[in-house]
Amino acid sequence: MTQSNQSQILGVLGGGQLGRMLIQSAINYNQDVYILDPDENAPCKDIAQKFTQGSLKDFDTVMAFGKECDVITVEIENVNTDALQALADMGKKVFPQPHILKLIQDKREQKQFYKENGIPTAEFMLTENKEEVLAKKDFLPAVNKLGKEGYDGRGVQILKSEEDLENAFDAPGLLEKLVDFDREIAVTVARNERGELVAYPSVECAFHPTANLVEFLFAPAQISPEIEEMAQQIAKAVILKLDMIGILAVELFVTKEGKVLVNEIAPRPHNSGHHTIEANFTSQFEQHLRSVMNWPLGDPGLRTPAAMVNLLGEEGHTGPVLVEGKDEALAEKGVYIHMYGKKLTKPFRKMGHVTVLDENVETLKKRAQRIKDLIKIKSTT
Amino acid sequence: MTQSNQSQILGVLGGGQLGRMLIQSAINYNQDVYILDPDENAPCKDIAQKFTQGSLKDFDTVMAFGKECDVITVEIENVNTDALQALADMGKKVFPQPHILKLIQDKREQKQFYKENGIPTAEFMLTENKEEVLAKKDFLPAVNKLGKEGYDGRGVQILKSEEDLENAFDAPGLLEKLVDFDREIAVTVARNERGELVAYPSVECAFHPTANLVEFLFAPAQISPEIEEMAQQIAKAVILKLDMIGILAVELFVTKEGKVLVNEIAPRPHNSGHHTIEANFTSQFEQHLRSVMNWPLGDPGLRTPAAMVNLLGEEGHTGPVLVEGKDEALAEKGVYIHMYGKKLTKPFRKMGHVTVLDENVETLKKRAQRIKDLIKIKSTT
Repeated sequence: MTQSNQSQILGVLGGGQLGRMLIQSAINYNQDVYILDPDENAPCKDIAQKFTQGSLKDFDTVMAFGKECDVITVEIENVNTDALQALADMGKKVFPQPHILKLIQDKREQKQFYKENGIPTAEFMLTENKEEVLAKKDFLPAVNKLGKEGYDGRGVQILKSEEDLENAFDAPGLLEKLVDFDREIAVTVARNERGELVAYPSVECAFHPTANLVEFLFAPAQISPEIEEMAQQIAKAVILKLDMIGILAVELFVTKEGKVLVNEIAPRPHNSGHHTIEANFTSQFEQHLRSVMNWPLGDPGLRTPAAMVNLLGEEGHTGPVLVEGKDEALAEKGVYIHMYGKKLTKPFRKMGHVTVLDENVETLKKRAQRIKDLIKIKSTT
Repeated sequence: MTQSNQSQILGVLGGGQLGRMLIQSAINYNQDVYILDPDENAPCKDIAQKFTQGSLKDFDTVMAFGKECDVITVEIENVNTDALQALADMGKKVFPQPHILKLIQDKREQKQFYKENGIPTAEFMLTENKEEVLAKKDFLPAVNKLGKEGYDGRGVQILKSEEDLENAFDAPGLLEKLVDFDREIAVTVARNERGELVAYPSVECAFHPTANLVEFLFAPAQISPEIEEMAQQIAKAVILKLDMIGILAVELFVTKEGKVLVNEIAPRPHNSGHHTIEANFTSQFEQHLRSVMNWPLGDPGLRTPAAMVNLLGEEGHTGPVLVEGKDEALAEKGVYIHMYGKKLTKPFRKMGHVTVLDENVETLKKRAQRIKDLIKIKSTT
């Protein structure tokens, strides 16, 4: 018989919406969560057991924070991995493990990892500077990615033809063959120290045409059982090859020829899993908690088909938040609004999301579009 | 088009588990919640935007707290209603309205309200003292209830025969004919200022044999469509006759003759609605928020049949909490644990609850019993 007096402290580097939704799950288990975030108004501030304002990139700050915790995790990859390694060496549980965060921080290492481990991914070439990109014009059309510091579409650009080459990044990066994909899907996998491994059903992602952010997500993905099986196997292979503990979002391309290629991965709760809060038996946030705390993993199955709509700050609006259309949306059956507690909006800032449940997959697409047209995040000034 | 900048403060009198689960819902809407509770370690303390330690019964304390809020609600009935009335007179929104709380605080007034409004309820007689009860031996078997201060089974006893009469309460109370019921059910209704009114499907309650607390709850109740319709209509009639805004739990007896009688009511989220967090389209906590904030009400429909098990402190255990069997329970599909953040356990204290989802209603009963046998709330000392 297991016993638990819930005395372990979980520390999270980052106090944004992902940490906030993690805390919402942790409350159900009396699981204390400490948060470190540079923003004094971070979304987690009011609901964490302890909130520390400080840099995630500063060695001493992360060390001091981590020493107060028993288990340490992240909701953002861009953190000081040397401090995390030092904490792990002290005996703290750090999940995902620091070497995995280090790998994720460099897209060049990530791609090489796929190659070395037989994980299918788009063909690529490493480039050290702009000059090297310019020399690769035969490789176009391609995606040019910075090795480091890319996030939410920053540090990523498409180079279609020779004219685009003048925008090439002049820093270590890579060129990746532009994949002529049929659709983009994502599979979330989770693994704990007991060796349990679960995979969520694939979801389908629709990106914003210009902002390079997920705009809509649909679960389940409209793919064949064979593609689904391939996607699940690839996602499981990635977390196993990484030997990772925690939750991992694997974004995949399904090509027109029916191949499945890894695009990017995120070793934390991810935008592509937000619908799981209402749509699946176990939400990705609870699964993250279960995996890093080494509790039994939960069933990842889908209860009800769902769409997810990101609520991005409207263009032309910067300042205190004004939400338009909330009431109309709330009046609909199976509509779930999640606001992230951010005091200020700015164009394309992720301010919240909405999940729509509907047994009818076709209806879901229309309803998601209507919700997007209805709810607008503006500023009061 | 409605607009909302979420600047209204919601104040809650009481910071126990009901307030805690209300805050978990409020987080999704950036809805700030202030809490007043006499216990410095109340379950809401760490997650409320503002926590004030103070008496719920003291006029000045409630006034000072309420003045900081725009909308004021309760998670317990035993509060200073004079202060709430004064706040309402100042223009604050107070839901449920103070006169309703006053009515609920006195079981004698409650019963007379049913009688005057044609709400079916068990036959009763008012008694002023023990002597009056002794004179009513022809009315036995009966339930003897104290008019005031009863809660969770306190102030309620069954007088079966003349020998029991010596235990009669010697204070203003009532005698209620013991109902030979087939089952006990509950219907939750909610109403907002827009005049919207929704009713949840009936649930079936199984009480602890000695502690007079709900031990198990099953949704939906195993009753005929006719009984279901009667129960829904009665619950709606109660909230309408009360002219109440907020959420109201109506506990009902279904008699062996197929009558439906109101037993007790609670104008707040209630133990009989805990399963709604996972089992229904809109949880009772979100519905409470929607009703008192005058947002559109949510669909009350059941998504999946469910059982709810209260986690009560084990007999013989008083002190810091030790949870046994959590891991085994978590390994099951569709099991949701909610711990209430209470630092100390004592016999029969409500420490948490578990919801079990299962499409098979028969399986649910077995699984609920297994969860109850598995998870034990003990003390570390």
